[in-house]
Amino acid sequence: MKGALYVIGLGPGDAGLVTPEASAALARCTDVFGYFPYVARVPERPGLTRHASDNREEIARARAALVCAASGGRVAVVSGGDPGVFAMASAVFEAVESGPAEWRALDIQVLPGISAMLAAAARVGAPLGHDFAVLSLSDNLKPWDLVLHRVRAAASAGFALALYNPISRVRPWQLGAALMALTEILPSETPVIFASAVTRPDERIEVLTLTEAAGAPERADMRTMVIIGTAETRRIARGNGHSDWIYAPRSVGPLPA
Amino acid sequence: MKGALYVIGLGPGDAGLVTPEASAALARCTDVFGYFPYVARVPERPGLTRHASDNREEIARARAALVCAASGGRVAVVSGGDPGVFAMASAVFEAVESGPAEWRALDIQVLPGISAMLAAAARVGAPLGHDFAVLSLSDNLKPWDLVLHRVRAAASAGFALALYNPISRVRPWQLGAALMALTEILPSETPVIFASAVTRPDERIEVLTLTEAAGAPERADMRTMVIIGTAETRRIARGNGHSDWIYAPRSVGPLPA
Repeated sequence: MKGALYVIGLGPGDAGLVTPEASAALARCTDVFGYFPYVARVPERPGLTRHASDNREEIARARAALVCAASGGRVAVVSGGDPGVFAMASAVFEAVESGPAEWRALDIQVLPGISAMLAAAARVGAPLGHDFAVLSLSDNLKPWDLVLHRVRAAASAGFALALYNPISRVRPWQLGAALMALTEILPSETPVIFASAVTRPDERIEVLTLTEAAGAPERADMRTMVIIGTAETRRIARGNGHSDWIYAPRSVGPLPA
Repeated sequence: MKGALYVIGLGPGDAGLVTPEASAALARCTDVFGYFPYVARVPERPGLTRHASDNREEIARARAALVCAASGGRVAVVSGGDPGVFAMASAVFEAVESGPAEWRALDIQVLPGISAMLAAAARVGAPLGHDFAVLSLSDNLKPWDLVLHRVRAAASAGFALALYNPISRVRPWQLGAALMALTEILPSETPVIFASAVTRPDERIEVLTLTEAAGAPERADMRTMVIIGTAETRRIARGNGHSDWIYAPRSVGPLPA
């Protein structure tokens, strides 16, 4: 059997958000590679070998999956959310580029998934309904000065922000620093959404103001998606215990001064 | 029966990319509202009334759907791709905010879909695998100066770009102008992807250099997603008639000069 490698997005967690395409590909695979909690979402069955590994081993995992596919396996590499957004697709192609020439002839397909940012946005309304920028706040793979430069540049130009990897035990201060920098650019009432474990049983979603968020970055954790609005972002108060709706209007005024 | 309104993303076109959650919600609805080609993707069945309307009638469509839900209907408002990305979710909440107070008490849920940008990115590799910005090139709802300012600001800060609404018969020159502006910021060999009708039978995907794309913006049309890389974007030549893979590496060097 000719080998193949599918880079699959499992969506944010709810089974109702796994695409039929992803489910069908997983049902045909001989091997699945990924970070422990994502591999655990693929049910065991005869004929499927599950290879779970730790969070920081992306390139090693990608290479192991490519070796398996090159030897004839039908291989899945799974990510949460979408595999093309701060996930395994880039790692697989990095491994291909630096690997043996034969890997370039492999049948590699990326199967998109519901991204964490869009699932989080949907929970509160449409905060990413107009122009927005997506960035990782991790300074493991790029310098912190560059992270902060991009946060400032995007907010100054009027993009809403979706922040991946906002905080972790080894990166405890970066989210607070980014939010503080934004208080110099955006109105203090700008909505900030901390959306944790979206669509999972322990989902927790908070809508704060920018000032509140900058004072409490520890309310986010590794599983939190942070969405930051713009000066245009609207907040619809609903009353009666309903949570507010947050959305980006479709039209924007002239250039900020 | 209590009314409800679901703002549903149908994904880019392939049935394998419609989430089970979206399919289940559509199966329960009494009414579906949307732009003609999206409504056409929801099969007719007894008990379902389909309300198709033209492209430019987003607010009128949102209001009609809200009236229907407020009178007890179980209503779907459908978009292609994800409903929260330049689609109907923002229009629905705009209509709610400017509408009667009772609309704020409605059960409104946004059900995410596979966005056109992530489906397009998946087709060529992982060009949105690191920081990126998403913007509409349409100057119908924001001034052209602001569009161009955002394109320049995002590219200058090192974001890849995903451009919605790149071109149409009434907006024929804006994509060329944006690409020309980018030639002053990005290397001439920066990959540009024109991805049309992604996952549909007439899908057409071209990978050009920035120089080539700036000289041929007419190769895009209303159904094209335009993705523009950065100075870091990698292109893996594969040979033997295989199309190249394009991806964003996971790590980035220090601040651009």
